[in-house]
Amino acid sequence: MPEVFRELRVELEERAYPILIGKGLLGHRDLTPFVSGRQIMIVTNTTVAPLYLESAKQSFPGCQVDEVILPDGEVHKNWEVLNRIFDALLEKRHSRKTTLVALGGGVVGDMTGFAAACYQRGVGFIQIPTTLLAQVDSSVGGKTGINHPLGKNMIGAFHQPGCVLIDTDTLKTLPAREVSAGLAEVIKYGFIQDREFIGWLEENIGALKALDARALTEAIYRSCRCKADVVAKDEREGGLRAILNLGHTFGHAIETHAGYGNWLHGEAVGAGMVMAAHLSLRLGTLTEEEYRRVESIVAAAELPMRAPEGMTPRNFLDLMAVDKKNVDGNLRLVLLRSLGDAEVTADFPQSELMSTLEAFCK
Amino acid sequence: MPEVFRELRVELEERAYPILIGKGLLGHRDLTPFVSGRQIMIVTNTTVAPLYLESAKQSFPGCQVDEVILPDGEVHKNWEVLNRIFDALLEKRHSRKTTLVALGGGVVGDMTGFAAACYQRGVGFIQIPTTLLAQVDSSVGGKTGINHPLGKNMIGAFHQPGCVLIDTDTLKTLPAREVSAGLAEVIKYGFIQDREFIGWLEENIGALKALDARALTEAIYRSCRCKADVVAKDEREGGLRAILNLGHTFGHAIETHAGYGNWLHGEAVGAGMVMAAHLSLRLGTLTEEEYRRVESIVAAAELPMRAPEGMTPRNFLDLMAVDKKNVDGNLRLVLLRSLGDAEVTADFPQSELMSTLEAFCK
Repeated sequence: MPEVFRELRVELEERAYPILIGKGLLGHRDLTPFVSGRQIMIVTNTTVAPLYLESAKQSFPGCQVDEVILPDGEVHKNWEVLNRIFDALLEKRHSRKTTLVALGGGVVGDMTGFAAACYQRGVGFIQIPTTLLAQVDSSVGGKTGINHPLGKNMIGAFHQPGCVLIDTDTLKTLPAREVSAGLAEVIKYGFIQDREFIGWLEENIGALKALDARALTEAIYRSCRCKADVVAKDEREGGLRAILNLGHTFGHAIETHAGYGNWLHGEAVGAGMVMAAHLSLRLGTLTEEEYRRVESIVAAAELPMRAPEGMTPRNFLDLMAVDKKNVDGNLRLVLLRSLGDAEVTADFPQSELMSTLEAFCK
Repeated sequence: MPEVFRELRVELEERAYPILIGKGLLGHRDLTPFVSGRQIMIVTNTTVAPLYLESAKQSFPGCQVDEVILPDGEVHKNWEVLNRIFDALLEKRHSRKTTLVALGGGVVGDMTGFAAACYQRGVGFIQIPTTLLAQVDSSVGGKTGINHPLGKNMIGAFHQPGCVLIDTDTLKTLPAREVSAGLAEVIKYGFIQDREFIGWLEENIGALKALDARALTEAIYRSCRCKADVVAKDEREGGLRAILNLGHTFGHAIETHAGYGNWLHGEAVGAGMVMAAHLSLRLGTLTEEEYRRVESIVAAAELPMRAPEGMTPRNFLDLMAVDKKNVDGNLRLVLLRSLGDAEVTADFPQSELMSTLEAFCK
């Protein structure tokens, strides 16, 4: 048993599953208790395979372990590439008792989960996320899917894993920029519902940036627990779950304006959270001191604090008008009622939003 | 309200939905109580569209009703054709409150249901089956999916409809051969669990062949109720549900040997049921008189009673060896313990099976 280890049990209506978090778990944890048959299909990509595929195989002693290695990148999150997973399953004669294992970041997780949801109308699924973003975002919620040329994540399913294994050592091979992008989502959980976690983050952001296993394990545990709390109250996305989108409405506008891939998702969310906090400050729900704390945590995570060069308030308004949270054409935003408490609201003067946009578009 | 009408409520763990059965329902029944939004996408094919699309549209007054017309045939039950549904949904900007309506036979139903299961991770679904086979087979069970080049129905989901509307008038445009094929499944329900229904069928098979609306409504109602009983006890296919495969193991061998499309599925099941009854007779669970009743109902439905010309017992054994019901390489068959009572069993001497195969391969 490794020294640095925490386990979170995610309780859902019909099922429950564990998230195992710690240092040096990959290849040393026997995951066979979480599979129903003896067939395993590990799905990974060309970047992750050379680093972790062999270790991952060690987690399934006594099983038939096959593999599919997909090309890396969001651009490959489509039907043609998904179909390679089905091809491999059928060529290797995997039965409906097979278990699919996602080894990689969010794209691998989304595609593998969707393949598991659809193969023979549903088979087992285990996640081994290897990016910080996937560890704190995809481990809970059960969202899987692929993109369609006319829309991201338009085709998919809800499919819960039987187990999630998070090895903090896998972050050592992650580019620093992607660590920061993952931290944006970690910080978000503090802002939306855990004020005490914000204090912890202020003290430990340096250790997280330095990939200290103990700090990472704690941060990932608390992030997953926070998301699990929110999702448990709203498993199929009625209303509450929308608070997980803090910073995302501004962020999506930034990502789209910059062109996908130029800003990482987490980077756009980082700037977007500061903008949401700024608007909350203008509306009087956040104090000046609380707003400064938001700014300084985001800065400490080395995330951007401004809109991209040349982006205008008009650009923001046009791009935010198509957000999924909007109702009857009214823009809805996740704003902070206080530090550690978020709400979805359309109740803000357009002039205040404009002032915030202008402040960040200089 | 039409004169000939029955309603069956299918009760499942989390949800329940009605099957509305009768004469002249299409276009006269308002189906808007079963949709959550105001957007409808009717999916049909080139054969059914000219006959019933306009009537189907009348069932959704006040809604935005769009349509996709797919090519007709099992050969088109693949991802490329499925994707046309997603294209249409996104081009017409259907939201996650949309409802997909399957208007056609089993292929349209399977594909539309799968599209509804996956579009934005799950939207509403209504079935309007227009073949007898789809009416008595696809109305209950929630199975949806598409074929993969390496296997039929390998990619899919369980997705329950909000409502099924069955208009017996749509059978007037169905070729007589397909009516007989549908009757094979109707008869099957009697054989596997409803002895009293067998007596009813013996009296009414002529009226069914003549498409009498009252007889059809009763037969469809009882078939769906029987399947609902079995499925309710085994929603995700553990064991009992396998009895719905009476005649199917012999039948699949016949279909494969004959080449898909040369024998209709129901025709192969018809011959297969007589073979299963013959083996049950040899094993002593069915009496000679009961076996004669099986033969004469199947004959009255104008279904084939023999293996295809030139097919040998060896052909059967080879093709049956790959059946999904088999466990550890042992052939398992659905046999009759008595008329109206079926079981899945591997407990029969190979020699008796050979005798049955030889009797039907002359």
